[in-house]
Amino acid sequence: MSEKPIKHDASVAGESSAGSMIEVADLEDIAVGGAVLGTGGGGDPYIGKLMAQQAIRQHGPARMIDVMEVKDDDLVVPCAMMGAPTVMVEKIPQGNEILVAFRKLERFLGKKIDAILCAEAGGLNSTIPFVIGAMTGIPVVDGDGMGRAYPEIQMVTWTMHGVSATPMVIVDDKGNSVVLECIDNRWTERLARAATIEMGGSVLIALYPMTGKVAKAGSVRGTLTLARRLGEILRESRVSHADAVKSIQSKLDAATIFIGRVTDIDRRTVTGFARGHATFAGVDDYRGHTYRIAFQNEFLIAERDAEPIVTTPDLITLLDVDTGVPITTETIRFGLRVVAIAIPCAPHWRTPEGLALIGPRYFGYEVEYRPFRASA
Amino acid sequence: MSEKPIKHDASVAGESSAGSMIEVADLEDIAVGGAVLGTGGGGDPYIGKLMAQQAIRQHGPARMIDVMEVKDDDLVVPCAMMGAPTVMVEKIPQGNEILVAFRKLERFLGKKIDAILCAEAGGLNSTIPFVIGAMTGIPVVDGDGMGRAYPEIQMVTWTMHGVSATPMVIVDDKGNSVVLECIDNRWTERLARAATIEMGGSVLIALYPMTGKVAKAGSVRGTLTLARRLGEILRESRVSHADAVKSIQSKLDAATIFIGRVTDIDRRTVTGFARGHATFAGVDDYRGHTYRIAFQNEFLIAERDAEPIVTTPDLITLLDVDTGVPITTETIRFGLRVVAIAIPCAPHWRTPEGLALIGPRYFGYEVEYRPFRASA
Repeated sequence: MSEKPIKHDASVAGESSAGSMIEVADLEDIAVGGAVLGTGGGGDPYIGKLMAQQAIRQHGPARMIDVMEVKDDDLVVPCAMMGAPTVMVEKIPQGNEILVAFRKLERFLGKKIDAILCAEAGGLNSTIPFVIGAMTGIPVVDGDGMGRAYPEIQMVTWTMHGVSATPMVIVDDKGNSVVLECIDNRWTERLARAATIEMGGSVLIALYPMTGKVAKAGSVRGTLTLARRLGEILRESRVSHADAVKSIQSKLDAATIFIGRVTDIDRRTVTGFARGHATFAGVDDYRGHTYRIAFQNEFLIAERDAEPIVTTPDLITLLDVDTGVPITTETIRFGLRVVAIAIPCAPHWRTPEGLALIGPRYFGYEVEYRPFRASA
Repeated sequence: MSEKPIKHDASVAGESSAGSMIEVADLEDIAVGGAVLGTGGGGDPYIGKLMAQQAIRQHGPARMIDVMEVKDDDLVVPCAMMGAPTVMVEKIPQGNEILVAFRKLERFLGKKIDAILCAEAGGLNSTIPFVIGAMTGIPVVDGDGMGRAYPEIQMVTWTMHGVSATPMVIVDDKGNSVVLECIDNRWTERLARAATIEMGGSVLIALYPMTGKVAKAGSVRGTLTLARRLGEILRESRVSHADAVKSIQSKLDAATIFIGRVTDIDRRTVTGFARGHATFAGVDDYRGHTYRIAFQNEFLIAERDAEPIVTTPDLITLLDVDTGVPITTETIRFGLRVVAIAIPCAPHWRTPEGLALIGPRYFGYEVEYRPFRASA
């Protein structure tokens, strides 16, 4: 593993993953590292990992390429699982569904898909592209549309590059499918959400079909390599959370926000989203302070003594102090001791257009975004 | 107008409407007669009539053909408006939406549509096919899939002939569209209903693409001619409801169930449907009896003194005693004096397969269907 510092958007650091083959073992790290980038959301790492490993065992490894290897006129298509993570735990999808989604989109567009993109970094959705990658031999681009996880379809860097989320194909586990064509990406979110709920709460999707040219300009680069490295760090230092945090901080421009114990959780499920906040009593160096994290599927705002200190789009990630395992908004529970880490977001989001899509105000918080800089 | 008795499925009587041109004035009668067959549902006659008349004024008359004129390998496609009638009154659709739905379905199937079918008889949906018929010159088949109105997509005679409701195209007034492909017609109903609600409550749809051969075998024949005749009768005898009822009864194998005054209405809107029941005190020859009609968008069960006397699939239609105007489940109100008429359903429904789709038990009533026969 390279020891040079890596950035959250590898394009900055000139990272490349040219033509690497992704094997069964890689999925362990990608799933866990994806969960770190998932900032509490992005789905359970277990299911996607199983699906991708199964596909690789059956069809051989998936090929991962740097986005710069894609040709300008290639057809590049992101894929993901959409829905409530809790539902997914109960009904593990067949890998075939994502293949069906790709084939239906190809038929609708009258064109073959040349490369697969990851829609969001998350425990689940960082692994889904490798299912279809292994099954079809189509290369998986080392990048995504968020550099983290977000709850809604329009919340991707591609929206800022004028890419339509549609035609979008939605496939369920029963054999039903939907093709959407919408006037904008927020309408796509509305109609896809309604379909997802009716189809049982979790579906596989292929959307944002784009040219290679746009994929190069509009994607967050190197996300899957970053996820693999974060997973590797946590695996190697599982015995000590302190080591893990130190390693993550040395790799990314990250910092510990606090170490604390969960004293209260207010969580409701609203239209398929887990919304609420968790309160923490600081421990060790953070004793005497009260911390609060607001979430809507993902952790969005961290406060110390009622003052916001880190906000979306910067990443707020919780690790279990005892095990180093990333904690999701679904698994956080009273009494849990966590270390909260802040990671700077992909630079795409630190623009007026980016903040309009996913800044604190979009989510209903009357908070100004101030870019987080650990090393400042 | 021919004075020979006509049947509810003209195939029985050998009716034919070969090549007749439908003009602006015809729409007045088709809309009102469609509302009679709509049995309390099927949408407001006013909007569809306006849309179709507008299209005919702009593009010339629509051509109506008998289903037997369709070639076996023709592509025949029913169309309709779907959603809550009350919503439609508030947002009158552009005629173009149904054209968009047809063009998208043609593109999806890679084939031109040769003939248009009416999905259901109703004040609204008996007129919608003429919008697209006038706009495109594609002939409108004189028939439908119900011979009346029903609330759900799978409730058509074509379901009994193994026709899939999908690929189905849904288009809204904003420019969004959905293509569904479902494992069965009940799933199509579920997913189309969810999309309709999210799209604002009323949409235009093209569905059940079928061959001419299946259209001939599976459609209720002559429905639009029947609607036009019923409308004509009501127009000519508007001054006297008694004359109107007598005329309708002489044309169809119909009978008066009761004449009564509305004494109670229990109506809720549940998942886009108007559900409930209305109670009536009998007047004139029916004095001393209490009548009750249960409805779910359409009138489904008529009881006299708590005994079911007419049930779905036979038609229960209410006319305003003073004006002869058909009353819908949305417009029925306390104090209104109505004459309730029973009309035998199309023979397709009086089969085990038909009753499984739309018999009293499907709608949750513990009532056995006994075919209504006025002349028995």
